[in-house]
Amino acid sequence: MQRTVCSLIAAAGLAAGLSSGALAEDWYPSKWGADDEIGAANALSPEKVLEAAKLITAGKTYRMGVIVGRDTPAFPPRSLSVTITMPNQFGGATFGENGMSYVDDIFTGWLGIGTQIDSLAHLGIDGTFYNGRKAKDFVATTGVKKMGIEKIPPIVTRGVLLDMAKYKGKDRLEEGEVITVDDLKGAIEAQSVTPGEGDVIVLHTGWLSMLEEDPERFGSGEPGINSQGAEYLAGLGVVAVGADTWGVEAVPFDENGAVWGGHQVLLAKNGVYILETLDTRELVADGVKEFMFTLGQPLYRGAVQAIVNPVAIR
Amino acid sequence: MQRTVCSLIAAAGLAAGLSSGALAEDWYPSKWGADDEIGAANALSPEKVLEAAKLITAGKTYRMGVIVGRDTPAFPPRSLSVTITMPNQFGGATFGENGMSYVDDIFTGWLGIGTQIDSLAHLGIDGTFYNGRKAKDFVATTGVKKMGIEKIPPIVTRGVLLDMAKYKGKDRLEEGEVITVDDLKGAIEAQSVTPGEGDVIVLHTGWLSMLEEDPERFGSGEPGINSQGAEYLAGLGVVAVGADTWGVEAVPFDENGAVWGGHQVLLAKNGVYILETLDTRELVADGVKEFMFTLGQPLYRGAVQAIVNPVAIR
Amino acid sequence: MQRTVCSLIAAAGLAAGLSSGALAEDWYPSKWGADDEIGAANALSPEKVLEAAKLITAGKTYRMGVIVGRDTPAFPPRSLSVTITMPNQFGGATFGENGMSYVDDIFTGWLGIGTQIDSLAHLGIDGTFYNGRKAKDFVATTGVKKMGIEKIPPIVTRGVLLDMAKYKGKDRLEEGEVITVDDLKGAIEAQSVTPGEGDVIVLHTGWLSMLEEDPERFGSGEPGINSQGAEYLAGLGVVAVGADTWGVEAVPFDENGAVWGGHQVLLAKNGVYILETLDTRELVADGVKEFMFTLGQPLYRGAVQAIVNPVAIR
Amino acid sequence: MQRTVCSLIAAAGLAAGLSSGALAEDWYPSKWGADDEIGAANALSPEKVLEAAKLITAGKTYRMGVIVGRDTPAFPPRSLSVTITMPNQFGGATFGENGMSYVDDIFTGWLGIGTQIDSLAHLGIDGTFYNGRKAKDFVATTGVKKMGIEKIPPIVTRGVLLDMAKYKGKDRLEEGEVITVDDLKGAIEAQSVTPGEGDVIVLHTGWLSMLEEDPERFGSGEPGINSQGAEYLAGLGVVAVGADTWGVEAVPFDENGAVWGGHQVLLAKNGVYILETLDTRELVADGVKEFMFTLGQPLYRGAVQAIVNPVAIR
Repeated sequence: MQRTVCSLIAAAGLAAGLSSGALAEDWYPSKWGADDEIGAANALSPEKVLEAAKLITAGKTYRMGVIVGRDTPAFPPRSLSVTITMPNQFGGATFGENGMSYVDDIFTGWLGIGTQIDSLAHLGIDGTFYNGRKAKDFVATTGVKKMGIEKIPPIVTRGVLLDMAKYKGKDRLEEGEVITVDDLKGAIEAQSVTPGEGDVIVLHTGWLSMLEEDPERFGSGEPGINSQGAEYLAGLGVVAVGADTWGVEAVPFDENGAVWGGHQVLLAKNGVYILETLDTRELVADGVKEFMFTLGQPLYRGAVQAIVNPVAIR
Repeated sequence: MQRTVCSLIAAAGLAAGLSSGALAEDWYPSKWGADDEIGAANALSPEKVLEAAKLITAGKTYRMGVIVGRDTPAFPPRSLSVTITMPNQFGGATFGENGMSYVDDIFTGWLGIGTQIDSLAHLGIDGTFYNGRKAKDFVATTGVKKMGIEKIPPIVTRGVLLDMAKYKGKDRLEEGEVITVDDLKGAIEAQSVTPGEGDVIVLHTGWLSMLEEDPERFGSGEPGINSQGAEYLAGLGVVAVGADTWGVEAVPFDENGAVWGGHQVLLAKNGVYILETLDTRELVADGVKEFMFTLGQPLYRGAVQAIVNPVAIR
Repeated sequence: MQRTVCSLIAAAGLAAGLSSGALAEDWYPSKWGADDEIGAANALSPEKVLEAAKLITAGKTYRMGVIVGRDTPAFPPRSLSVTITMPNQFGGATFGENGMSYVDDIFTGWLGIGTQIDSLAHLGIDGTFYNGRKAKDFVATTGVKKMGIEKIPPIVTRGVLLDMAKYKGKDRLEEGEVITVDDLKGAIEAQSVTPGEGDVIVLHTGWLSMLEEDPERFGSGEPGINSQGAEYLAGLGVVAVGADTWGVEAVPFDENGAVWGGHQVLLAKNGVYILETLDTRELVADGVKEFMFTLGQPLYRGAVQAIVNPVAIR
Repeated sequence: MQRTVCSLIAAAGLAAGLSSGALAEDWYPSKWGADDEIGAANALSPEKVLEAAKLITAGKTYRMGVIVGRDTPAFPPRSLSVTITMPNQFGGATFGENGMSYVDDIFTGWLGIGTQIDSLAHLGIDGTFYNGRKAKDFVATTGVKKMGIEKIPPIVTRGVLLDMAKYKGKDRLEEGEVITVDDLKGAIEAQSVTPGEGDVIVLHTGWLSMLEEDPERFGSGEPGINSQGAEYLAGLGVVAVGADTWGVEAVPFDENGAVWGGHQVLLAKNGVYILETLDTRELVADGVKEFMFTLGQPLYRGAVQAIVNPVAIR
């Protein structure tokens, strides 16, 4: 899988020169002001929390994260490992009069694997990111100085699930299959719940079932939105757009030579967060269309992504 | 700080010989059966979720995680770093016709730093862990085979905060100051909310304020419970015991030569989870005693801990 | 390959109980004294250096290391990666008036991959290592306290290459093919150079050619010595035994249920170092039988192995 | 120390814009041709090996590497750790009928710490490196495609030590103290050995003694050459320039706003390797001026530096 994703990027080609250095004043201004670092998280509110709380009627929780490990397909060159050790207990030694034994774990790897949230520092256009910030100004090797993952407040709001597979009359969309703006509008119309300001929208494509069936194929392509779809969803005022795919966008890309244009629309132009590889299966099985979405991502200082496990409650 | 915590362990002494190899049949049987891997998480239920949902009246969320980074005090030899890179964008190169730029992050370090949850695979007695499982049978270098962090279901239930500092008439308890069983009972009586079956209990000691004041001192000791307190809290039927300290227990330990006896009681004997370095300050400032506690930990396969950020909602 | 090596170990079975705790007094005493940490490196001497220097007649150097990278087969769960970054030069930034640009590299992985030297702290018998040292006494999570890789002096001495493939009339020995004591004696007799006290002996089996042909097969087995061969070679007084295989010993093992018995003989009982995955091809092509062997391993404090690149000179 | 080195870089200032993109045709042409990747290593030869071998008269070896570990001062944000584990031997388990126990080690960190060699891919000018190669063309996250550390042949040649401390009548030069071209010429004249084509030249400043005395001060500055000195030494035709300092050049820099100008001269303009943090103490104590220099660096594919331990023999 890693090879295939690589080749897609290669096919799209590296830009011939250096970034064009668009000036900050040309940049898509944030509606939350020039100093804003959290984008659409500004749309979170007590009212949305209370609205979401009303959706809790069954007391059932859903974990939307997938298990991640050494074998999880990853966008190259990302990889991870967890290594287990029992520090200083070699030969079966224990600590203290009470024979304390303990196990510890070392994580070595990239934070953009499995279920993840993309911060606004993750992806931009020609070196410029959300609110006109330039990589050379805010990206540092020991942690981004702006828009880091630790800045994102708890995301507790209404979650709205759009079952795109059902809308298209399939169990699972195909790799490269584009969810168009009309598809999105149609699916919204077909279900009684309309996503809007401050919601988290989650697309179910069925693609996640491929992760177990054929991990390499899972990571080699995916169904999803394109830039137009991203514009449409951002226009609804949502806090985040998620999907049961590893990149939310249709891959191979449908746009001539462009890569991850939807990410640019969501993150860089609109400050909308992206949630990837969400497990939507049980929600779909239960016919859940709206729920309380809860996410508290680990607060790694200066990181740009985090492996997460959002919990849906209804 | 690292040195100090080390010396405490050294003072407690390494057990002279190898683990005594208690037989499984002698072991504290789990009330959820011999195959159980999730312990007190069995006490979670739709009823508890609905009970917790009723507590959401203001629509306010609280992040209970602290920011973790290179400078966060850690139990030695734990350490962590996040390293930022822009893969294959050297010299300012971008991808695609649309000039896609992106930032990635590598986490290298131990998972028991900052705000964390301890799984039932984290700590045991003489090499034996929850439900009589022996390290040599379930601990493997690439991930524990039982009771890994990925087994814990979403923890959504009532959270009960006990303000032990207020009960003792202080802003902050001192390192080594033991919260006794009587203290716990007194504080419960003093506030109108009684923790019980299926709750998450959180102790506020004020110690977290030391993290910014004097990180080395923060990590060198802490106020907290002892084994008796752990027995008492486990007896209440709670799912997890948390605190605004890095180890929940009083350090230096008050028990002669024993180390982390409270962990043994909670994790190994009773299957009760432990939550460390919780930020309780804003909850206390708002006078919150009960709330909806939500936690979806990252699902690292075979890990025994996770850096987390529980969200309190009320 | 990783699976296969794993299964071999599994087949050999884990010992049923804990280590038997042989007493230090029962242990194979070092001829260099009870405090000795460097074993056969004591046989190095100015005389051996001068003897080796006389072998330099052509002025040709040979690198005996192989290139190691992400794809190099490794004994599981070992793995490694090198990650390249240009620190704080995001968006093409440079440093200083003189436009300084620089590239750095992060190594994440295990030190026992590719061409390597095993220190005397690497492998033992029932938790006891060279000179009767017990794991619980000298192994620490942040570095071994005795016999670490940093203790080994420069190894500059005569290298003697035994072409075992030629002796057996083959280009390449097969996996599991045992080089017996008689084979060793026969090959020594067949060539005019006799290995002895203070030498480094290197076995050429031809197996390294499999590394490029079929990396998985390369790592799944190998020709080599067994415990008897190790005893014989140690008896010659050599400083180190090397081979063009990843483990020097025949795998699958020929000894009923025993694994790495030759390592135990060399490292633990005799203090003889082991050199693995040496590239002997060019030496063999040139018909070189003796040469100056030079090795300065990186001096990682407390490590037990090192990835190295010995240089042969003749 | 890390802070101090950082601040020096900060003081020098980041270039205001992106790299100026000098064309390859403007670049310092390599005398070894446009495809050359190894620079001055081309000056190595059998004749130089034989010349060096004649210097071996005492049979004494010197390790020129220092021990590196968690506490070794490092150019920020570089750091390293070695973590020791006994894989799958939890609770004292062993492998096989023969009770095989083993210890493994994980290295996590940057390769530019302690005694190191800089490859020609390490440092350049405005994003352009040796032989006019641009970062965007040859630097990749998983390893440089040109001039990687694995390309450097064994460096076995005459080593010439210049005792600059003695020449200046001191035990140790001071931080920021510049070794001028006249100093270099004077020291060469003062000793009977003249460095030339194909040699490795090593400067002894005495600064390494500061590593133990005051590690922070050691890393905060250093005596050394400047760009002019680098030009002079490169002009002699040497393969590599080394010193008993962490950066070979005088820090704070004497050149107005320029940083590591000497590195640019050596690596980028002339293809001359740099060796840092060499331990020259014992050579100086023995009055050694010329010796056989031997170095086989670990062959990490695509790395740009390596932690090494060159061995001097005389």
